[in-house]
Amino acid sequence: MADFTKEKDCDQFHSHKNLPLALVGEVGELSEIFQWRGEVARGLPDWRDEEKEHLREELSDVLLYLVRLSDVCGVDLGKASMRKLVCLREKKEKEKEIGVLKND
Amino acid sequence: MADFTKEKDCDQFHSHKNLPLALVGEVGELSEIFQWRGEVARGLPDWRDEEKEHLREELSDVLLYLVRLSDVCGVDLGKASMRKLVCLREKKEKEKEIGVLKND
Amino acid sequence: MADFTKEKDCDQFHSHKNLPLALVGEVGELSEIFQWRGEVARGLPDWRDEEKEHLREELSDVLLYLVRLSDVCGVDLGKASMRKLVCLREKKEKEKEIGVLKND
Amino acid sequence: MADFTKEKDCDQFHSHKNLPLALVGEVGELSEIFQWRGEVARGLPDWRDEEKEHLREELSDVLLYLVRLSDVCGVDLGKASMRKLVCLREKKEKEKEIGVLKND
Repeated sequence: MADFTKEKDCDQFHSHKNLPLALVGEVGELSEIFQWRGEVARGLPDWRDEEKEHLREELSDVLLYLVRLSDVCGVDLGKASMRKLVCLREKKEKEKEIGVLKND
Repeated sequence: MADFTKEKDCDQFHSHKNLPLALVGEVGELSEIFQWRGEVARGLPDWRDEEKEHLREELSDVLLYLVRLSDVCGVDLGKASMRKLVCLREKKEKEKEIGVLKND
Repeated sequence: MADFTKEKDCDQFHSHKNLPLALVGEVGELSEIFQWRGEVARGLPDWRDEEKEHLREELSDVLLYLVRLSDVCGVDLGKASMRKLVCLREKKEKEKEIGVLKND
Repeated sequence: MADFTKEKDCDQFHSHKNLPLALVGEVGELSEIFQWRGEVARGLPDWRDEEKEHLREELSDVLLYLVRLSDVCGVDLGKASMRKLVCLREKKEKEKEIGVLKND
């Protein structure tokens, strides 16, 4: 994650009035890729190479805007996400324990 | 609203696997129009004619997908929205009354 | 459509800094309704009544923000959408004609 | 990035019919945080601590869904994004060179 932040290019984006909306724009482009398809099958076996490449580009665009928005907000996105994951895992462990106790 | 529903063209959209995602795609295009601008000033005094035309098109696209999605879901969007507005107004009247009572 | 615009309540929304983002927020809530389900079946035969009511509310919220955004922008959404529909129909008629000519 | 993918928890999400829509839902929640505010100032000096914490959570949620969607699609999001960044940088270098040549 740090790499992306280092790689960031201030000039490139500085004219954005509205980074959250820019992120939505990218998510919209990602949605358009999926809208004509049914459920997403693991590994996208029935997608053509150029479709996969397009997808990779759009997923990257969303990430780059997300990293940029986080950076402008002073949020360490990598750290924040790890913390969230740890929370989710702990919550789940607890739910399992409760489940085990209930089933005793 | 009824006009739009009557105007609907089943064939045109029938291949959509995913109308909600299609709606998001259109909202993304709308967002892209606004992302480079600051706050939206009433009547868009500083927008060029072709920018306004582009905006009109994108606003219409969002509406048309919204109407279509509602239609597929069997929701009378006009009726539902009027009901929501009535609810909002009643809620507000009540809040005003409470405000008046408090200030007595 | 005119009814909604008349019904609009300036005060209610005046503190919105960012109507396009507010619209995205509502579309996000709508998406959350659909995210756990497969393809949308016409009329939503397998949805519970409270789920349908929730959907009606969210569809209405999107419409109300869309009408409000259009209004702030000075766009007559009803007129713009009718024009778009007429365009789409004419385009389709033309495509049919071309198809007929080709098949002659 | 690899850490997130390792951390992924298949069971937790397996019931999602529609990961792209789930991502949109999270982006909608993020948008709601920004909709009441004006332009985002670097470091969010005027935000309260709990607002910043809420923002960190929502940014993380978007990332986690993005990583998950990429994973299901078989896309190495870290690699894809680095490639995109390299492309953007090369494009920019070229534009600078052309600019220099033009100014000669």
